[in-house]
Amino acid sequence: MSTTIEPVNVKAQAQLAQKASKELGLLSTEEKNDALYTIASALEENTNSILEANGKDLENGREKGFDDAYMDRLSLDEKRVKEFAEGLRQVAKLDDPSGEIVSEWTLVNGLEVQTIRVPLGVIGMIYEARPNVTADATGLALKSGNAIVLKGGSTAIHSNRAIVGVMKEALASTKISPDAVQFIDSTDRAATEQLFTMKEHIDVLIPRGGGKLIQAVVNNATVPVLETGVGNCHIYIDKDADPEKAINIFLNAKTDRPAVCNAAETLIVHEEFLNQHEDKLVTALKQAKIGIYGDEKAVDRIPGAFPAQEEHWANEFLSLDTAFKIVDHIDQAIDHIDTYGTKHSEAIVTENSEAAKRFKGLVDAAAIYHNASTRFTDGSALGFGAEIGISTQKLHARGPMGLPALTTIKYVMNGNGQIR
Amino acid sequence: MSTTIEPVNVKAQAQLAQKASKELGLLSTEEKNDALYTIASALEENTNSILEANGKDLENGREKGFDDAYMDRLSLDEKRVKEFAEGLRQVAKLDDPSGEIVSEWTLVNGLEVQTIRVPLGVIGMIYEARPNVTADATGLALKSGNAIVLKGGSTAIHSNRAIVGVMKEALASTKISPDAVQFIDSTDRAATEQLFTMKEHIDVLIPRGGGKLIQAVVNNATVPVLETGVGNCHIYIDKDADPEKAINIFLNAKTDRPAVCNAAETLIVHEEFLNQHEDKLVTALKQAKIGIYGDEKAVDRIPGAFPAQEEHWANEFLSLDTAFKIVDHIDQAIDHIDTYGTKHSEAIVTENSEAAKRFKGLVDAAAIYHNASTRFTDGSALGFGAEIGISTQKLHARGPMGLPALTTIKYVMNGNGQIR
Repeated sequence: MSTTIEPVNVKAQAQLAQKASKELGLLSTEEKNDALYTIASALEENTNSILEANGKDLENGREKGFDDAYMDRLSLDEKRVKEFAEGLRQVAKLDDPSGEIVSEWTLVNGLEVQTIRVPLGVIGMIYEARPNVTADATGLALKSGNAIVLKGGSTAIHSNRAIVGVMKEALASTKISPDAVQFIDSTDRAATEQLFTMKEHIDVLIPRGGGKLIQAVVNNATVPVLETGVGNCHIYIDKDADPEKAINIFLNAKTDRPAVCNAAETLIVHEEFLNQHEDKLVTALKQAKIGIYGDEKAVDRIPGAFPAQEEHWANEFLSLDTAFKIVDHIDQAIDHIDTYGTKHSEAIVTENSEAAKRFKGLVDAAAIYHNASTRFTDGSALGFGAEIGISTQKLHARGPMGLPALTTIKYVMNGNGQIR
Repeated sequence: MSTTIEPVNVKAQAQLAQKASKELGLLSTEEKNDALYTIASALEENTNSILEANGKDLENGREKGFDDAYMDRLSLDEKRVKEFAEGLRQVAKLDDPSGEIVSEWTLVNGLEVQTIRVPLGVIGMIYEARPNVTADATGLALKSGNAIVLKGGSTAIHSNRAIVGVMKEALASTKISPDAVQFIDSTDRAATEQLFTMKEHIDVLIPRGGGKLIQAVVNNATVPVLETGVGNCHIYIDKDADPEKAINIFLNAKTDRPAVCNAAETLIVHEEFLNQHEDKLVTALKQAKIGIYGDEKAVDRIPGAFPAQEEHWANEFLSLDTAFKIVDHIDQAIDHIDTYGTKHSEAIVTENSEAAKRFKGLVDAAAIYHNASTRFTDGSALGFGAEIGISTQKLHARGPMGLPALTTIKYVMNGNGQIR
């Protein structure tokens, strides 16, 4: 079943976005903030129509038998719509990165050189069930001076359509053209795939959702991609770890919100630590109802542990299960993370500063923790406000991506006839 | 004819590079500089063997009937080898970006957050005839703490093999493992294509060469790419341009080095300027032996102008020819650049500050010039020394890319048991 009434013209929409992005790039911070406040109020005022649309998605979801976690991600209520609005107001309060003079100097011939931060242009956002991304990503894009093309998951299409409708109507009374927000109103995968190669009109694609979605975009897009999210994160408890810190940190990273990307998925324990603190650790894991998929040694030592298969090392559990590996040298832990990590967040618990230094130097990830939980890899936890995603790639932006990740620079030279 | 003796194992080489990159990332600036100086001296000492190898490439090139410009790019002499060595010494003197603490702050819970600049890891360099790239790119990669996999053009394979051989032998006596420099000793296109998808082992691909090579990499690589180089650059002479500046700037941008990427390819002239200064401009173009491919108006007005086809607007001439367009509004110039520009370097000549502001705000390119020649888009001209290429993309790095473009950041958190 397609919910679209007529075929969407993805290219025409991307072109409209691109055209709108040019004017948007010239607006002042105040004009952009005004638009965000206007959208925020409009979302609150139109809560009922948004919730009504959401009701259709929830009904479809129930018919399709989605699980509770999925339904929770999909579902909106008055409080959540209020949160969208508050999120937009928060973004309005953040510094505007666009227009910042990053550096400037003058050549000996008198040519003045500036590097100026400017919007990327058009952001293509490809995401799954969460309708909040529709409002959050739009706020971040507009604030940084970018137009946005939104392609949300088909299961949330009624909610997204309603949210975008409200936002575009609100924009009509502001300096930002409603064309700056484009909603691909289609459940057809081909519409998404058209975005992959639209280099002429889209400057960056940001996929948010599960690993399959992200890999489909990364592997098929010729438009540059900001890869986000999959976090196969490890906690390594070193031989010189403080047992209380170690257990608290792992429990927090594993159980606080098991389904998020900065949650821990594998516990790696140095054998010497285990020899001293096995009872305490295993008891804590049992009490927290953590299921264990262990390597051979772990299965031998820990009652109730299942043998881990390749898939358990390689994938996120996103649940209270954990993989469990025992090592007899820190370098084995580092090698394991090298093999299976997704370059998101990795932690070492140790009182040994040499071990910490080695781990921080050799582990290749966006965020490395010494004696702290991986759960802090998050824009708001780190203090820079809303994020468009958490980059697990190395180019352009790494880790939680705030507004500056949605900008690039331009060299601007002012001369009086200089030639070379 | 393949010049390889046995099939190369691209994957094994990339893995060796990756392994070497990890140790390399932990070296001090002094250790890396020492290695660069050692390579520099070795290149000078082995000039004869490098020139002998180059002789084979030149002989093959002559047999294949390459044109003079190509042969010039391919050809080495004592002076050029000396320049490789000097280039490496220059890079040794540049600031080491790796290890720089970019920012640091402490959360209210006491968690210390740092963002630290770190090497990307392994750089895959795919390039064409110029053997100097072999030494230059290696120097920049090693200085910034990266390993490098080199895949040069098959026409320069003897030269590249000799240069890499000397560099690796020199590295053996330094703290940098010779494995950090990998040379794909093959003329087989399949070897290059293997690099495109080796995401596990290569962190970024940098293509340098003609548009065809660059597009092949951009369109087929799943490894992130830093797109470089093609410059379809425009000089726009506004109605309020100073005629002397305008003519000098265009002549410089067109004729100083017509084959480079920051050379001008299209001249766009406001009709009012032309009405006043046509004789002066046309005389100057004739004297400089510039061939003109004009739009309809230009062909009508300028004796000897050929009618421009789509290809003339869309491609680099890389010669003394120019496309020539007449507009009656600045926005037509901006639209034309939007349509045909490659986001490299664009210039406006005008004494009107409003026109300059509009052009600088609306034209989307790495470098925008007001009253200066596009020829300054170049790492050394702008004062930051050697460059690995000129980025025409918006993500990660834009414009001339020096050492910092070969790095990323890592969030490093130091805690004492913080959980969320």
